[in-house]
Amino acid sequence: MKVAEKPLKEILTSLLITMGAADKEARLVADVLVQADMRGIHTHGCSFFPLIAERKAAAMINIPTRTQRIVDDEAVTLIDGNNGLGQVAAAEAMEVCISKAEKFGVAVTLVRNTNHIGFLAYYALMAVKKGMIGVCMTNAAPSMAPWGGAEPLFGTNPLSIAASVSDRSPIVLDMSSSVAARGKIRRAARLNEKIPQGWALDSKGNPTTDPAEALKGTVLPIAGPKGYGLALFIDLICGLLSGSKYGRDLLSFHQPIGPTGVGAMLMAIDISRFMPRERFEILACEYAEAIIRSKKAMGVSRIYLPGEIEAENEKISGTQGIDLDAQIIEKINQICKEKGLSVHLEELRS
Amino acid sequence: MKVAEKPLKEILTSLLITMGAADKEARLVADVLVQADMRGIHTHGCSFFPLIAERKAAAMINIPTRTQRIVDDEAVTLIDGNNGLGQVAAAEAMEVCISKAEKFGVAVTLVRNTNHIGFLAYYALMAVKKGMIGVCMTNAAPSMAPWGGAEPLFGTNPLSIAASVSDRSPIVLDMSSSVAARGKIRRAARLNEKIPQGWALDSKGNPTTDPAEALKGTVLPIAGPKGYGLALFIDLICGLLSGSKYGRDLLSFHQPIGPTGVGAMLMAIDISRFMPRERFEILACEYAEAIIRSKKAMGVSRIYLPGEIEAENEKISGTQGIDLDAQIIEKINQICKEKGLSVHLEELRS
Repeated sequence: MKVAEKPLKEILTSLLITMGAADKEARLVADVLVQADMRGIHTHGCSFFPLIAERKAAAMINIPTRTQRIVDDEAVTLIDGNNGLGQVAAAEAMEVCISKAEKFGVAVTLVRNTNHIGFLAYYALMAVKKGMIGVCMTNAAPSMAPWGGAEPLFGTNPLSIAASVSDRSPIVLDMSSSVAARGKIRRAARLNEKIPQGWALDSKGNPTTDPAEALKGTVLPIAGPKGYGLALFIDLICGLLSGSKYGRDLLSFHQPIGPTGVGAMLMAIDISRFMPRERFEILACEYAEAIIRSKKAMGVSRIYLPGEIEAENEKISGTQGIDLDAQIIEKINQICKEKGLSVHLEELRS
Repeated sequence: MKVAEKPLKEILTSLLITMGAADKEARLVADVLVQADMRGIHTHGCSFFPLIAERKAAAMINIPTRTQRIVDDEAVTLIDGNNGLGQVAAAEAMEVCISKAEKFGVAVTLVRNTNHIGFLAYYALMAVKKGMIGVCMTNAAPSMAPWGGAEPLFGTNPLSIAASVSDRSPIVLDMSSSVAARGKIRRAARLNEKIPQGWALDSKGNPTTDPAEALKGTVLPIAGPKGYGLALFIDLICGLLSGSKYGRDLLSFHQPIGPTGVGAMLMAIDISRFMPRERFEILACEYAEAIIRSKKAMGVSRIYLPGEIEAENEKISGTQGIDLDAQIIEKINQICKEKGLSVHLEELRS
């Protein structure tokens, strides 16, 4: 089903305000959730909204989010997210990075004790708007084993990096350190489908194509020891160094059994310290065009830049409406009723 | 064949001095090359020494290396490597990062117009010795296509990150953004062996297990679009932003047809801004032990930390000698003769 961007954002904003969120906070969180769905990243979109509502009802998340600066030291900052909304802590952290990178050329901000921050490219792209290269990483609840292991110790710890390009959407990479998201395995289990070889191991550490066995086991890191190493370092920085939870101790946002303890790292590098921003953007555009025009493999009709598919999805969603599962729309409308809001989401008719 | 560490380093140092290197410079380059072989990373070891000699003879590398600071601005620095030895520029860049991170908490240094810097963990580990998290990236001559492409546009652009752990060797990731090194494909071609599916594409962009076809084609990025994205961003930062070569323009160090135009990025984050270094190292050690002791997959006898195998190799090489191809030893001895040095490498007898 398709819904329009504006009413969706307005309803989520209103609902977040009824949950205690400040106005700016509510608009930000709605924006992050809706933009994920608009970009086609439905695993990180409005399906998280009912989880926020459930967590708030269980008094396991603090709304409004009251962050605290623990370290504010030259180019480095540490923000305690106070178990509030992850989007608020992460966006504040990137704002701090941008303003400090203006002063020092580069800045790193760590966030601790927060919750799921949504899709990472959102924050990396905040830096891009200010002429900077943006980086964002976060840890997550354990679902992946070390290489050679059979026990979940790391999340699918993702990493995003973005840069601006003249006359085009920014180039933005947003990738997890696992081959496939657990959400895709859950979906295969629901649909009674097999999963591809190479996605997951069963609880004994054997390869499996059975989603039920995979859900009892672990997801596989990209490129074996490489993805394991990436996930570990993301956890060492976002979790351990920030003073947040790490390894086995993180809890999933999907079950309200306690604070998730998520940590994040944000970084901005000021392009203008190295070359004029316009020159970088023109050269990056020429590079992007060279990639797009380069020789294609047999059967391939188009080469995409990182983030290009998502940017196109976003445009299409803006004009033709946002694809949302009927189930999600129903849940949001149900929460509207519970909160006594006289509005509800309507399907977009073309 | 095995050779001892001390005479190998001394001979390479003496040879580099005859090529015009300053004393400190010669010792550094010898150290980086020999340490790679000691750690078992033979693709980045003394096999590069004859290439340096050849490049120097062709007057295509500037020795001694005279770097220049182009930008020296708060926490960011840009160093021009002046087409000298890559090891010298990269080590200087990491020294600058360490001293600036002491002041600002984090620092980034870009290097342009340099040559192959050797194995990246060397520089990341320099930061670790000073209580910091070290990061190093570099671009390389094109051998990898964008995802969906069939034309080499990116190198196997590698990334290293390292952190210290109490009572253990540092944890250090050193990975390329390609599935396999081109060197491994060259070796299979020499031995008339097939290469595994998933390593490379032929010149039309079709999967191949024939190393000869693969060498005419491209190596595959790790995890498809993810490795492509990583390689592209490493190139955008190390190559384009630094003002170095990028994309198609880089030349290989293996053929002396012109300056390679390699760029690099080095970064250090001062742990002590976030928590006492000792506490980080103790917690990281506990985390490392938890990983090692975690449940193993069927048939796996041991779980390794990133860099653990290399650290063990280094210890063994130090006591039992360094494995070097007879061919490399012969070439080094031949260069000794040409340079009129009265020493030569001898095989270590046990």
